[in-house]
Amino acid sequence: MRMVDIITKKRDGKELTDQEITFFVDGYVAGRIPDYQVSALLMAIVFKGMTNREIVTLTDRMEHSGDVMDLSDIKGVKVDKHSTGGVGDKTTLALGPMVAACGAVLAKMSGRGLGHTGGTLDKLESIPGMNVFVSDEQFRKQVAEIGCAVVGQTGQLVPADKKLYALRDVTGTVESMPLIASSVMSKKLASGSDCILLDVKFGNGAFMKNIEAAKELAIVMCKIGNALGRDTRAVLTDMEQPLGFAVGNALEVKEAIATLHGHGPKDFTELCLRSGAIMLEQAKIAKSEEEAMKMLKKVIADGSAFEKFRQMVIAQGGDVSYIDHPEKFPESKYVVEVKAAKDGYIKRIVALEIGESAMRLGAGRETFDDVIDMSAGIVLSKKVGDKVKKGDVLCTVHTNVEDHAQILKDIEEAFHIVDEFVAVPPTVHDYIH
Amino acid sequence: MRMVDIITKKRDGKELTDQEITFFVDGYVAGRIPDYQVSALLMAIVFKGMTNREIVTLTDRMEHSGDVMDLSDIKGVKVDKHSTGGVGDKTTLALGPMVAACGAVLAKMSGRGLGHTGGTLDKLESIPGMNVFVSDEQFRKQVAEIGCAVVGQTGQLVPADKKLYALRDVTGTVESMPLIASSVMSKKLASGSDCILLDVKFGNGAFMKNIEAAKELAIVMCKIGNALGRDTRAVLTDMEQPLGFAVGNALEVKEAIATLHGHGPKDFTELCLRSGAIMLEQAKIAKSEEEAMKMLKKVIADGSAFEKFRQMVIAQGGDVSYIDHPEKFPESKYVVEVKAAKDGYIKRIVALEIGESAMRLGAGRETFDDVIDMSAGIVLSKKVGDKVKKGDVLCTVHTNVEDHAQILKDIEEAFHIVDEFVAVPPTVHDYIH
Repeated sequence: MRMVDIITKKRDGKELTDQEITFFVDGYVAGRIPDYQVSALLMAIVFKGMTNREIVTLTDRMEHSGDVMDLSDIKGVKVDKHSTGGVGDKTTLALGPMVAACGAVLAKMSGRGLGHTGGTLDKLESIPGMNVFVSDEQFRKQVAEIGCAVVGQTGQLVPADKKLYALRDVTGTVESMPLIASSVMSKKLASGSDCILLDVKFGNGAFMKNIEAAKELAIVMCKIGNALGRDTRAVLTDMEQPLGFAVGNALEVKEAIATLHGHGPKDFTELCLRSGAIMLEQAKIAKSEEEAMKMLKKVIADGSAFEKFRQMVIAQGGDVSYIDHPEKFPESKYVVEVKAAKDGYIKRIVALEIGESAMRLGAGRETFDDVIDMSAGIVLSKKVGDKVKKGDVLCTVHTNVEDHAQILKDIEEAFHIVDEFVAVPPTVHDYIH
Repeated sequence: MRMVDIITKKRDGKELTDQEITFFVDGYVAGRIPDYQVSALLMAIVFKGMTNREIVTLTDRMEHSGDVMDLSDIKGVKVDKHSTGGVGDKTTLALGPMVAACGAVLAKMSGRGLGHTGGTLDKLESIPGMNVFVSDEQFRKQVAEIGCAVVGQTGQLVPADKKLYALRDVTGTVESMPLIASSVMSKKLASGSDCILLDVKFGNGAFMKNIEAAKELAIVMCKIGNALGRDTRAVLTDMEQPLGFAVGNALEVKEAIATLHGHGPKDFTELCLRSGAIMLEQAKIAKSEEEAMKMLKKVIADGSAFEKFRQMVIAQGGDVSYIDHPEKFPESKYVVEVKAAKDGYIKRIVALEIGESAMRLGAGRETFDDVIDMSAGIVLSKKVGDKVKKGDVLCTVHTNVEDHAQILKDIEEAFHIVDEFVAVPPTVHDYIH
C-alpha cells in the first residue's frame, strides 16, 4: 500500500477502505508517513468529504492510536458532555455537579481556551490551588468517591488527534466536517464514558456559523458515537449572543456558583437543566426528561449540587473558601459600566465581539503562550430581547489593562439596540437523539 | 503574510496576489515554508485551479528561483522545442539538426525517460562516447559554433520546479493544469531561448489522454510564454499510436539518422517538417511555413541537416562512426518478429502498451535507478491504417531479456486488426499560435 495512491483515490472522490484508513492513521502516528503526504490527503478530504463508514473507521483508528481510558471498574454509568466552544460557556462547572448529585458519574477531560472562546480548565484554575492535571490514579479515585472530576487530557490519549490537529491548524484544513467530527469524537470515545452529550453551538461566536452546518456536524458525531457503542446525543444551542451573563474566568466561576444556588441567568440555567435531563435519561437514572428535570431542580434546591461542586474543588486541591465566599475572588483594577446610548430593545449582542473584547481585556489568550488575567472579563446586564432605556447599564467591564478605551467602544458596539420589539430567542434549538 | 492564510484563500477559491505567490515560491525554495504547507496548497490548486494571471506569476517566480540562462551573446535567434512526452518520440534528434542547418540556433535542455516514455538524453547516450552533461562554457561554445546542442539540465536552473515536482510526485498533485503548465514553462523560459515550440501530445501514450485537455494545456502554456516575452506556439499531436516506427534508444537514433537522410517514417518526417517550419517562422528565418518547408526539405536533400547532427555528436564526444555506419550499433541477443494473426486493417497500436512493453524489454526505466539496455526496443512494420495479411510482420522485437514470451504476447495484443477499412490518422491535429 502506498500513501500517494490513497491521496489520489480520495482526490478523485473515491471511498477509502478500512485498510487504507488504518494504514494512514497508524503510519502517521508511527512517523512512517510524512506530514506533507498527510496534509495533501487532509486537503483532499476538505474537498471530497468522507462517507459515514470512512468517518467511523477514521475515528475508531484515531481513538485507538494511544491509550484508552477504561472506567469499567468505577461503579455507575459514566456520562460525558462536550461543547464545541463558545463565549461565556461555563456549562461544565454547573452541569457536572448537578448530574453527579443525581447519581451520574462525570469523568471529564476538558481543554484550555484560545482566541474568543474560553476553556473550562482556565476557568477552574481561577480558583486558588485548583489542580487540573492529576494522576490517572487520583482521577479514578476522585471519580469513584465523588462521582465528579474535571481535568486536563493526559498526554497518552489520542496522539493521532494531537498530530493531525497541529497539522490541520497550519495547512488550512481545520474546516472539514469529517475531520472536525473525528477529532472531537476520538477524544470523547478514548475518555471512556458510556454516554456522551454533545452541545453543538452555532452563531457568530461559535465555530459553526449557522444551524444547518451545526446540525450536520451533530448528526455525524452522533452517528460515530452510536456506531462505536456509546449512547451519543446532541443539543444544538445558540451562540449568537454569549451564554449567561459572565464572560471571563473567575467571573464565570462565580456565575456557575450562583446557578448551583438557583440564582443563575435564565438561558444558562435552562441549558444546564435541559442538558442534565438528557444525560440522566442516557444514564438511565431517570425514565423521562420530566422526571430528570425534577431531580435536577431538587439537587439545586436542597444544596446537594453545590455541595458536589465543593467536594470536587476540595478533591482537586482548590481553596473552597472562594466557593463558599465568591466575593473573595480578586477584583480587577478597573470596573467600568457600559451604558445604553438610546432607548429600545436589544436586537443582538455579537458574541464574537464580546469574546474577542474579553480576550483583549486579559481574560483570554491570543496565542497559547499568553498568560490569562483571571479577574478580567465582561458581565452583561442585558440580553437579547431585553428592553432598555438610554443610560441603562448594558454590561460591566473588568480589567487591569490600562489602555482600554477602544475596547469599551467595541463592547458598546457589540450591542445592537433597535426600536422594534425583539422576542427572547430560545437557547436550545434542536435535539438530536 | 502567513502561508496558512494563502492556503485557506486558495482553498476558498479566491485569486492569490502576486505578492502571495512570490512569498510562497521564494519561501519554499529558501526552506522557510515547510513541505506540508506547500502540499496542502498544491492540493487546493488541484481543486480550485489558478487564473491566467496567477499561472503567469507562478511561472515567472519559478523561472527566477535559480539561475537563468542568458544566451543573448550568442548570434542568431535561439529556438527551443518541448514535447510533453510520448512513445517513439525522437523528434529532437532530427528536428534540431534540421532547423540548425537552416540557420536557427537550438540550445536545448532535455530530460531522461521514465515508465513508458523515453528521454532524449538516454537516446543520445546510446551513441558511444556521447556526453550529455557538459559545462556551461562548453555548451555555449558548441551552440555558438555549430548552432545545435542537446544536453541535460544543469543543477542551478529552476530549483523551485525540482522541489515542487518531487513533492507533487508523492502527494497526488501531479495532475493539475496550472502546475503542469508552470513546471514546463518555467524550465523552458529559464533555458533562455527566444522562441518556444511546444509539442503537446494526446492519447493513451501521452500524459494528456484527450485532445481537449491537451489543447487547454497548450493554450495556457502559450499564454504564459507570450506573457513573459517569448514567441510561444504549440502543435497538438497524436500519441494514440507510437511516433514513427522505432521505440527504444539506439533504434530511435538509427531512425532519426534515416530521417535526416530523407528515408524516415511518413508520420515522423511530417512532424519534423511541420514543427521545423513553425520554428523557422518564429525565428524569422522564413517568411511563411511554405518557404520554411522548402528550406527544410533542401537541408535534408543536400545532406546539411545530417552533417549538422554529425557535428553535434562530434562536439559532444560521441563516436561519429556510429552515425556514419548505423549498422555498428550493437544488436540485441533476441530479434523476434511479431506477426499478424489475421487479415484486416490496423485499427489501433496502443502506444501505452508498446511503451510499457519496450520498457520491460530493457529499453526503459521503471524507477530512476534502473539501467537501460540501449539495444532493446520495438520496430513497427505497420502503422494505423495499414492493410495486413495473416502472417505479415507487425513489428520486430529487440531484447536481451531471456524470459520475453509474455511481453511478445502483450505486444501482439497492442495491435488491433479489424475487417473494415481504417483511414490513416493525421499526426498534427491542431496548431496554437
